[in-house]
Amino acid sequence: MNSKPSPQPTALVLLTEQEKKEFLPPDLESRLRELFPDLIWIEAPVQEDEWHRVLREQKPEIVLCAWETPTLPIEATEHLKYVCFLCGSIRKLVPRELIERGLSVTNWGSSISNTVAECSLLLILAALRRVGNWSVAMRTKGEWKTSRHPDTLSLFGRRVGLHGLGAISCELVKLLEPFRVQISAFSPSVPDQIYNDLNIRRCETLEDLFATSDVLVELAPGKPDNYHIVGDDLLKLLPEQAVFVNLGRGMVVDEDALVRASRERGLHIALDVYETEPLPVDSPLRSLDNITLLPHLGGPTPDRRRDCGELALQNLENYLNDKPLINLIDLNTYDRAT
Amino acid sequence: MNSKPSPQPTALVLLTEQEKKEFLPPDLESRLRELFPDLIWIEAPVQEDEWHRVLREQKPEIVLCAWETPTLPIEATEHLKYVCFLCGSIRKLVPRELIERGLSVTNWGSSISNTVAECSLLLILAALRRVGNWSVAMRTKGEWKTSRHPDTLSLFGRRVGLHGLGAISCELVKLLEPFRVQISAFSPSVPDQIYNDLNIRRCETLEDLFATSDVLVELAPGKPDNYHIVGDDLLKLLPEQAVFVNLGRGMVVDEDALVRASRERGLHIALDVYETEPLPVDSPLRSLDNITLLPHLGGPTPDRRRDCGELALQNLENYLNDKPLINLIDLNTYDRAT
Repeated sequence: MNSKPSPQPTALVLLTEQEKKEFLPPDLESRLRELFPDLIWIEAPVQEDEWHRVLREQKPEIVLCAWETPTLPIEATEHLKYVCFLCGSIRKLVPRELIERGLSVTNWGSSISNTVAECSLLLILAALRRVGNWSVAMRTKGEWKTSRHPDTLSLFGRRVGLHGLGAISCELVKLLEPFRVQISAFSPSVPDQIYNDLNIRRCETLEDLFATSDVLVELAPGKPDNYHIVGDDLLKLLPEQAVFVNLGRGMVVDEDALVRASRERGLHIALDVYETEPLPVDSPLRSLDNITLLPHLGGPTPDRRRDCGELALQNLENYLNDKPLINLIDLNTYDRAT
Repeated sequence: MNSKPSPQPTALVLLTEQEKKEFLPPDLESRLRELFPDLIWIEAPVQEDEWHRVLREQKPEIVLCAWETPTLPIEATEHLKYVCFLCGSIRKLVPRELIERGLSVTNWGSSISNTVAECSLLLILAALRRVGNWSVAMRTKGEWKTSRHPDTLSLFGRRVGLHGLGAISCELVKLLEPFRVQISAFSPSVPDQIYNDLNIRRCETLEDLFATSDVLVELAPGKPDNYHIVGDDLLKLLPEQAVFVNLGRGMVVDEDALVRASRERGLHIALDVYETEPLPVDSPLRSLDNITLLPHLGGPTPDRRRDCGELALQNLENYLNDKPLINLIDLNTYDRAT
């Protein structure tokens, strides 16, 4: 099966104890060591100069690593052909020049989409049932409901609008299926076939999407074109009793407009991402009434990070067998990454 | 189709403006008025003596009503044959003697199960992602996560245990389907066929259920046998990192034991129901770290109460056509009701 000529490429792992535990639990570590009997394993964190020295001395062809890895230097990486990154954002780790030079880089890609979709469903349900309000009111104010007619809503039968139709949205559609919702999406670059396969209505404009969505889920990519694309004008189009959820990128939404929509029109909001992270202590979002806030936890929960490890193992096998790599980062993807 | 002899039975509606808006929105009200052209409609609330006078004077055969209805008197209800109650708990409204005497009573039965199941899924996801903690921490303490390795869990692939396998649990199973969970249940009276149809493992003991559930969902009925059946012994059997959710009846769970499980073993908890409701201001549950609390909102959200109205209309049609009533309350059900 292995069409790669001997000797086997040198592979180097750099992970903290915690990263190893989450991304490569024992069964996956065993499979990795079977693939690479001469694996070099270094425990992170390492200082930058130590990292450079290791790369110079070991001359790895493959590096497998996660968050706690210093930037790859331009020098001392001449032998490096493939960086298998277990996480998402690769711009801090890999200078563009290395990709220009032909370095292959992969990341967790869509292996995490189902967990982000799960958090999206959680925030949708939380916004509809006012979980943020009640959590605070019950735990810090000794409150109880005052009426048999609470201001709560069900997801069943509502109109859900997806701003963005990438891998996370596609996974979210599966989770929404039992709720018999009507789904619309705005994502101009996605072909009709995808909309048809998912039974989603295509919106030609963001205005149409916002005006027809009881539940607006913000999952648009954080590219410059999308900066503050969601502002007063769009938010004002949301139907009465609509809820707004952002699991995508904070920069897409004008937070001042969001605060106005909450204060002036009672919009219920649930957020996992923010323009500035960590969210500033004095952010007005923290003092809104109708809001559920999470500190950017939408990504893979530690118990599902092994899925990223599984994907990495698949890619390492593909590399050894000269098969195409999954989630290969080309210059285009690199430039669009956040 | 109408096999009932003329003249049409006298039907009386007693609802508040709000109840009418929620349970019988205009389209349903129209259908009701088509069924009963001579419908008597009284706006609640009414005083008890006024209520008795109306019943004596109008002699309705059918009463359609909701929460804001005074108890039906033993006297002045000789003509009454059917009480179509739009809500759940009928013991405050209907004295047992009237059912003994042959009065037919129906309630919302399982028409609300999907909304309670929805709230169950919400509390499961909230407990796994620590929404209660973060809502309070982000909104009242200016906090942010301190690590890339938060103490959060995904529902994907976990073992879910259902204590109770009634209509709500069956609806919940549908919502859990996309999460590829393994479901077990403890409900001795439910026949094997139901377990098999739902692809649920039958637990012969509660001990087995608790010891094998990463997510324990409490949905057992509030009958006297179940009083405090969930205490220290069972809670200690839960696996490490388990979460505990109660959407059923507060009396089933020993809250002191729950507090101990949280404080001493870090159990994450999400609750919608309590032993005493409203939950006392000084309840220790309110000051736990790892908890999400709702004030008994699991029932049908106001926007889905029209489903109860639809069911009531179906029952009124059935009554007129001498067909069996759905969710008819017999003495056995009456005595078990909470």
